[in-house]
Amino acid sequence: MKATIFQGPGKIKVEEVPDPVIHDPTDVIVKVGYACICGSDLWPYRGLVNRPEGSRIGHEFMGVVEALGSEVKTMKLGDLVVAPFVVSDGTCPECLVGMTTACRNRQSWGLNGNDGGQGQKVRVPWADGTLVVIPQDNLDDHMLRALLPLSDVLSTGHHAAVSAGVSQGLTVAVIGDGAVGLCAVAASKRLGASKIFLLSTHPDRAAVGKQFGATNIVAARGDEAVEQIKSLTNSLGVDAALECVGTAESWDTAFGVVRAGGNIGAVGLPHQTPDIPISKIFSRNIGVKGSAAPARHYIPELLPDVLSGKLDVSAIFTITLPLDKIAQGYQAMDERKEIKVLIKP
Amino acid sequence: MKATIFQGPGKIKVEEVPDPVIHDPTDVIVKVGYACICGSDLWPYRGLVNRPEGSRIGHEFMGVVEALGSEVKTMKLGDLVVAPFVVSDGTCPECLVGMTTACRNRQSWGLNGNDGGQGQKVRVPWADGTLVVIPQDNLDDHMLRALLPLSDVLSTGHHAAVSAGVSQGLTVAVIGDGAVGLCAVAASKRLGASKIFLLSTHPDRAAVGKQFGATNIVAARGDEAVEQIKSLTNSLGVDAALECVGTAESWDTAFGVVRAGGNIGAVGLPHQTPDIPISKIFSRNIGVKGSAAPARHYIPELLPDVLSGKLDVSAIFTITLPLDKIAQGYQAMDERKEIKVLIKP
Repeated sequence: MKATIFQGPGKIKVEEVPDPVIHDPTDVIVKVGYACICGSDLWPYRGLVNRPEGSRIGHEFMGVVEALGSEVKTMKLGDLVVAPFVVSDGTCPECLVGMTTACRNRQSWGLNGNDGGQGQKVRVPWADGTLVVIPQDNLDDHMLRALLPLSDVLSTGHHAAVSAGVSQGLTVAVIGDGAVGLCAVAASKRLGASKIFLLSTHPDRAAVGKQFGATNIVAARGDEAVEQIKSLTNSLGVDAALECVGTAESWDTAFGVVRAGGNIGAVGLPHQTPDIPISKIFSRNIGVKGSAAPARHYIPELLPDVLSGKLDVSAIFTITLPLDKIAQGYQAMDERKEIKVLIKP
Repeated sequence: MKATIFQGPGKIKVEEVPDPVIHDPTDVIVKVGYACICGSDLWPYRGLVNRPEGSRIGHEFMGVVEALGSEVKTMKLGDLVVAPFVVSDGTCPECLVGMTTACRNRQSWGLNGNDGGQGQKVRVPWADGTLVVIPQDNLDDHMLRALLPLSDVLSTGHHAAVSAGVSQGLTVAVIGDGAVGLCAVAASKRLGASKIFLLSTHPDRAAVGKQFGATNIVAARGDEAVEQIKSLTNSLGVDAALECVGTAESWDTAFGVVRAGGNIGAVGLPHQTPDIPISKIFSRNIGVKGSAAPARHYIPELLPDVLSGKLDVSAIFTITLPLDKIAQGYQAMDERKEIKVLIKP
């Protein structure tokens, strides 16, 4: 089969590799139909985090079960499944409280001998704990594009909103107009937010944000964005600030726009982000929560709304490429020419 | 009238001062029946924070309305009222969202010309916004002792629990066995916590904690306490850690006992507390929230349960003194001989 190999910063290659086989009785093999490139795949691509050269890459994929380990109970051959961005056993105490990203048997796609999502096939460890079966057949291409983001970005946007306690009638500011920020807009709308400010200086991304439910586009950054949002909220600020970037500046903006007693839901991977002075929390009773989304825990809750068409973030995929051209996709995302790249292996 | 004067670290005096008079039409004068000494009054007493010498002190009191400004609408002469530990106008955007401690007209008792709660009378600014009327007459001494903690420590313990999202069936660890920690136990029980671990190495305080609803006493501190709680929770930790101390060590304990995806509710006044590395939050999806409790916002919710006898934390008052002997009370609390001192002016 073909799979994407990370060969060092800036070097993405597709190579012929051995087909995966069942190794443990809890494994399945998935034939990948849809995969994509994540903003976090760009971190090693840009040399900002280390990743072993020669490792597989990709952690968002959907496909059909092609082989089953003898102990797998919740799926059968031919089932359409979506994979969350980490492997989880589904049975440890952390998984049982919904914290699948803290699973005691957590594994990462593409590392330590695991296949990556950006390939034609993937051996999935702990298949019952990891995968979610899509309980419908004959889904069209549009619906499949709407389902794939459950794997990561839609679940992550939802996690930002949940971590900040977004609920009916609350006001929200989303910091970050990447795929995750845009999904955070859609998730906030789904949870009933009455006002959703999206910070975006890119008209194309702002347009997608509007489509997903943003009520106000704030075409500014930093202090200027804070001022604008304050002036639109009676100098109060918003109930929930969703931090979907991870830099020192975006955290400052989050603390700036959130009201006294409000919450910051943070999902932007911290990058040279300074410590949080306790005074920043204590001076105004600000809540801070977030990190990697337990996508496996959220997918069953979000899935019905995706299947009904109520929750459709497929517009984040601004280009579709075959696996052979995935290097072009990395380049386009690196240059921010595309929001998110869909791959059909 | 007589009032308590802070005369510098270690120096508490009761002096004759002029009776307060109505200054603004939104004022009332309260004749104080019950007051008390707060752990935070000990900070200037110990010289750990600055407070003007000669200032009044005390911010927890209950009494009867003795004079009314012309614009006061929600109370009448003779009403029994309880005062939250800060003055709030009740009408600004922050007050309207329940963040009365962030009121735009916030004032502190005992400072900038305001009376302190540890005196015979208090002029109350923004009386409608600040005070809560107790809607019952002829309450006995025991009930009045149960009501007074609404002023601060009971509302603060409740705030720790609310900030950590305590609800039906969750597991809680309370760090700190002072009056606030003990009230956090009672508040967690009221909110339905299924298991409440109280860290306490003082048998007398542990006994009060048991009475308030602690299911397990952990007679240890730091890493040893963390180990014990982990071993009792399937190595998971608790859903909610209530930080009621404010030191670097107690914060470490909070991060140590809380489970992945759990929440820290923090009300211990930070004291040389280091910044929070974002990695501490991000590595395990920990939520952090808290600060000064919006007592004025909570009192109407808690009051019915106090009046019905369901929520009774009067046992935190381990000694009662007349106003003239208040200096003894400061000394006893400073030496941790008493949990909390009730003053009858």
